[in-house]
Amino acid sequence: MRIAVLGVGLIGGSIGLAARRRLEAEVVGHGRSAARLERAVQLGALDHAASSLAEACEEADVVFCAGPVAVLPEQAREALAFCGPDAVVTDVGSTKAELVAALGGDERFIGGHPLAGAETAGVENAREDLFEGARWYLTPTERSSGLLYDKLQRAIAGLGARPQAIDPEGHDRLMAAVSHLPHVLANVLAAEAAEELTRDSERLPDVGPSFRDATRVAGSNPAIWADIFASNREAVAGSVEAAARRLEEAAGLIRSGDREALAAWHRAAGEARQRLLERGPDAGVLRELRIVVANSPGTIAELALALGEAGVNIEDMALHPAPDMTSGAVSLWVAGEEQAARAAELVRGLGHTVTLLDGAE
Amino acid sequence: MRIAVLGVGLIGGSIGLAARRRLEAEVVGHGRSAARLERAVQLGALDHAASSLAEACEEADVVFCAGPVAVLPEQAREALAFCGPDAVVTDVGSTKAELVAALGGDERFIGGHPLAGAETAGVENAREDLFEGARWYLTPTERSSGLLYDKLQRAIAGLGARPQAIDPEGHDRLMAAVSHLPHVLANVLAAEAAEELTRDSERLPDVGPSFRDATRVAGSNPAIWADIFASNREAVAGSVEAAARRLEEAAGLIRSGDREALAAWHRAAGEARQRLLERGPDAGVLRELRIVVANSPGTIAELALALGEAGVNIEDMALHPAPDMTSGAVSLWVAGEEQAARAAELVRGLGHTVTLLDGAE
Repeated sequence: MRIAVLGVGLIGGSIGLAARRRLEAEVVGHGRSAARLERAVQLGALDHAASSLAEACEEADVVFCAGPVAVLPEQAREALAFCGPDAVVTDVGSTKAELVAALGGDERFIGGHPLAGAETAGVENAREDLFEGARWYLTPTERSSGLLYDKLQRAIAGLGARPQAIDPEGHDRLMAAVSHLPHVLANVLAAEAAEELTRDSERLPDVGPSFRDATRVAGSNPAIWADIFASNREAVAGSVEAAARRLEEAAGLIRSGDREALAAWHRAAGEARQRLLERGPDAGVLRELRIVVANSPGTIAELALALGEAGVNIEDMALHPAPDMTSGAVSLWVAGEEQAARAAELVRGLGHTVTLLDGAE
Repeated sequence: MRIAVLGVGLIGGSIGLAARRRLEAEVVGHGRSAARLERAVQLGALDHAASSLAEACEEADVVFCAGPVAVLPEQAREALAFCGPDAVVTDVGSTKAELVAALGGDERFIGGHPLAGAETAGVENAREDLFEGARWYLTPTERSSGLLYDKLQRAIAGLGARPQAIDPEGHDRLMAAVSHLPHVLANVLAAEAAEELTRDSERLPDVGPSFRDATRVAGSNPAIWADIFASNREAVAGSVEAAARRLEEAAGLIRSGDREALAAWHRAAGEARQRLLERGPDAGVLRELRIVVANSPGTIAELALALGEAGVNIEDMALHPAPDMTSGAVSLWVAGEEQAARAAELVRGLGHTVTLLDGAE
């Protein structure tokens, strides 16, 4: 397998390391900085640096676009122009709807977003195990090639990550709520504290650990975050406005001084957080669902989205196309009896024939 | 020295450990739970448990009220009733204005608040070094006894903390901005994410590390926080409303998609945070300010407040009263030339004569 990485920072470099060592792939890189490319080769993240994006992409099986969010549309468009009909082009950007709208017309493009690597940056910090166990969202559309989706999700699972399909708009709303809004709140908190604390004195007093924690991401990487906010503006602005309304309600509750109501509100927030966090890696033995499908381009994406939407994680996938490619079977592996039964029900609901096999088969 | 600790949880227990080992004080404790008191004795946090609050307080030099915020007014009032004229009574609660208003009429009460111990609870987690290097706010008023303030701040420095005077309302506004508001934001974020993520699907998707960090304190200790919010309601509600207004502004900025303005906003937030956090422990050689004062009750508090307000940290303090107690001198030690000069200027501004000596003297 040959993998192209366009942009060798933390994510691109870690993809290279994991692909070379875990997938035994040949990894070719390209990027704006020759020095950074050379360093990536030294660190073992690339087999070699290509002298052009075209050279990196030709003969690649999978192309990872790992540049900044703002350049991804152009980077992916060029990659699609230079790579072959059996290559899949993906990206690692934090927002998906704009990009997919721009490129979703090509069956070879499938957007992606690994939830990893927020703390550091740069190829120097790249690690082979950066994606180990991490969720990696993929945004296939009804135009995406099922064969290429299979190839991509297999490569990503091979890097150690847990791929899951999601629709691009759902992804962006999700990220607005759990990632982009926290950054906005951190910024607001830092600004509010700075104004309050210096309003009528020159005192800059000691601040406690909760402030330090709550503002850890404030102001981080202004250029990157400007791009993320701009490319996900509607969803983020919506989340921010909803949070503002909740704060107004909270202010009223606090001003009332009603201890019981305050304790109940506090308790509900803790329970909400618990519900969101307690869902750890899926447990249970793998069960195989073998599904007979018309081998039309949208089917795989439809299946992956339906399961992803229902919170069922596809641990592995295999396509068994009929020789003439007009129909075929697909095997999906999911963990645990409960998820397997849920998945079978969903697949049947989509009109497909499904057989539930033991995972050991 | 004899110290009484009323309430032996994490803070009370840590005061006991530090007082016994660092101040070589005799530490007597009292609290609602006999089992917890016994455990505190076993752990070395108390020399012995008193059978009543009155017994704990009689002959105590310093009384630390370390019960929940809601019981502090009653606890401190009882302590003042049972301890002698030369004892100082303080507390460790997170809010100060209500308590000081209730008890500030007694020259022996000086409110306090150590910025330590937020992460755990219970006497089992008590540590001798919990306060090492931690800011410990004290809220003397114009009625507070200067001699008792000196005794208290000396004991607190002996526990390893860095005492600093602040007015009670200023303290509460400060805590609203840097501690209470972060808790409200964490609650709002958890609630908003839970609603967004379960609105139109049963999916509870994986959430990234920034959400985990940003909501770490959401819903923690509902009863404790209900008390804190209720006892600091005006300041917290004000901070929350200000944050809501900032969020509305941020939503407008984000919706505009103006990358340059977004980057500038982000950068300003990072700089604000940096300004608030970069002020580490004071550096520089100690300089002594020797100040001649009328030995009236309010003078020490006035000095400590003026310096605290200006961000000058009093590293040490000594009172040299004239035999008839009508006037005297006070020595303050501050770190570094710049702070010493600033302190001297402030003290002169208050109408006192001040001499700046080398710290070595």
